[in-house]
Amino acid sequence: MPPSQYRDAGVNIESGTRAVELMRNAVQATYGPEVLLGVGAFGGLFDAAALHAMDSPVLVASTDGVGTKTKIASALGRYDTVGHDIVNHCINDILVQGARPLFFLDYIASSRLDPQMVAAVVSGAAAACQAAGCALLGGETAEMPGVYAPGEFDLVGTVVGVVDRAALIDGSRTQPGDAVIGLASSGLHTNGYSLARRVFEGWDLAADVPELGTSLGEALLASHRCYLPAVQQVRQAGVDIRGLVHITGGGLIDNPPRILADGLGMRLERAGWPMLPLFELIQRTGQINDQEMAHVFNLGLGMLVVTHPDEAGEALSALKDEAWLVGEIVVHSNGPRVVIT
Amino acid sequence: MPPSQYRDAGVNIESGTRAVELMRNAVQATYGPEVLLGVGAFGGLFDAAALHAMDSPVLVASTDGVGTKTKIASALGRYDTVGHDIVNHCINDILVQGARPLFFLDYIASSRLDPQMVAAVVSGAAAACQAAGCALLGGETAEMPGVYAPGEFDLVGTVVGVVDRAALIDGSRTQPGDAVIGLASSGLHTNGYSLARRVFEGWDLAADVPELGTSLGEALLASHRCYLPAVQQVRQAGVDIRGLVHITGGGLIDNPPRILADGLGMRLERAGWPMLPLFELIQRTGQINDQEMAHVFNLGLGMLVVTHPDEAGEALSALKDEAWLVGEIVVHSNGPRVVIT
Repeated sequence: MPPSQYRDAGVNIESGTRAVELMRNAVQATYGPEVLLGVGAFGGLFDAAALHAMDSPVLVASTDGVGTKTKIASALGRYDTVGHDIVNHCINDILVQGARPLFFLDYIASSRLDPQMVAAVVSGAAAACQAAGCALLGGETAEMPGVYAPGEFDLVGTVVGVVDRAALIDGSRTQPGDAVIGLASSGLHTNGYSLARRVFEGWDLAADVPELGTSLGEALLASHRCYLPAVQQVRQAGVDIRGLVHITGGGLIDNPPRILADGLGMRLERAGWPMLPLFELIQRTGQINDQEMAHVFNLGLGMLVVTHPDEAGEALSALKDEAWLVGEIVVHSNGPRVVIT
Repeated sequence: MPPSQYRDAGVNIESGTRAVELMRNAVQATYGPEVLLGVGAFGGLFDAAALHAMDSPVLVASTDGVGTKTKIASALGRYDTVGHDIVNHCINDILVQGARPLFFLDYIASSRLDPQMVAAVVSGAAAACQAAGCALLGGETAEMPGVYAPGEFDLVGTVVGVVDRAALIDGSRTQPGDAVIGLASSGLHTNGYSLARRVFEGWDLAADVPELGTSLGEALLASHRCYLPAVQQVRQAGVDIRGLVHITGGGLIDNPPRILADGLGMRLERAGWPMLPLFELIQRTGQINDQEMAHVFNLGLGMLVVTHPDEAGEALSALKDEAWLVGEIVVHSNGPRVVIT
């Protein structure tokens, strides 16, 4: 074997360095005074002195990926939107426990990293972090030839937030008769892409689809919405939020039980909210039954808010984005925990 | 297209559920009283009330992967050791800033997840967390058909730790003449696998290699060491640690400058520590020059500890594992920041 240069083995250290430079500005725009050091140190430093103001601070952390939505991004060569996706997905995951995000870290890996692609992903993530008042505290890139299929990548995020213990939301105060309010999603968010890609196999992602009002690719790439502003609107209106459900993998069927106490179920009224055209297209094209659709997709509801029925009206009028009364908490004895009528 | 079942599209939801059950016990063993909820919630909850005891708590966070070491694990079908790797790598990354780990989260993705494989990885990670007094607070698995090459996987970890601001280590107090102590590595740790795999292309990973005293695969899978105990030993001896360098990607050449102030460099004495047989085998087989070896690998030193020269002896006698005086901090004007003589 001839003398080796590291680059010959498929790892280009310089391309990583250049990507770091390109995204540095976007990342630094997310730094509040709590961030003590920037990109480049071994670990990111976040001043937690503000936690002293809380009686009993609880850190809430979540790691997630965006699934095979990365394949749509790769196919279209558009990488900023998945950056928004991963941040918003993670923030929603800790928001449902009442936490506000403090900082976020990302990980991008591929067989070979293109600096522009990395910069686009991270710039998207930085923009989403900035919008949520969250520091993009660190991240890592990795070139893993032979592990990733050529041209494909994975994107992983971790968020850490905080909530005062008394403000923790865990669904334990939920009662039969409580109202379920649904907040509009923008599309698939980050779940169900393996099925959607199979349904649309052979379709031209770039071609306009009249019933979507855009191309299939654009509709599939629509960014995961961040529900932090909506939840803040409801809280600021003085409404007591008894439970929050982020609709992720497992769709409308598997996620609500994660916050329902034993003996409780949820009834959702299908006519209570408008189906997004993208889901209608997926169901019709793939000939997928209603149950399967609800088990995989959010069907237009990205977040569910549970309140006392007397407060549902107030919550709905506090919400500036699309939201509907979509169901109620019911007594559950047997059968499925979530019933869609 | 016929009616779809989600499983047909390559995503098996139940296999993920089963994996969660298998690893639950190992994960729960890492829970101290600070962990408020277990596996299954949207985000993990960590009681941060203990931070109130610190004057100025700083959270330190780091995300990383184990690189193509996953390919060795896949080839050998042995998945527990990379779980140790990712935890220890992450802990070392925040340890160099003086932080002790609070909690860790993992992410495992592949084209198709085998529950036993996931359970082995996470059990390894849990054991490493438990040894370090760190909670394995959460994690995520993802099946991404078409993104990962068949049989391959990626493993990502995020650690969050804490340090009181006055105890932060950042290398800023380092002076010319300071001693550099090297702590023994166990092998490649998590860096240089793309080059190593190229060097050993076509070798039988399972065959014993006499000079390694084990098989090539076992030597390549040796777990990344956690230097938390060693650093605690030095601190407990009353030694003032002026700087810590975790030797990761970029090897002995690129990592020391991360903590060196302008105008400072590092001189390492190659004869100061024993070369691990694995590195000799890699260099000889791949005909790799000394500079390239030092730019890719740790060459037997996983962590460097910088102290006042008068305290080096005390630090060395406090260390229970292998450690050597390997160099010193020097004045740097031009040329490479790290010189190995």
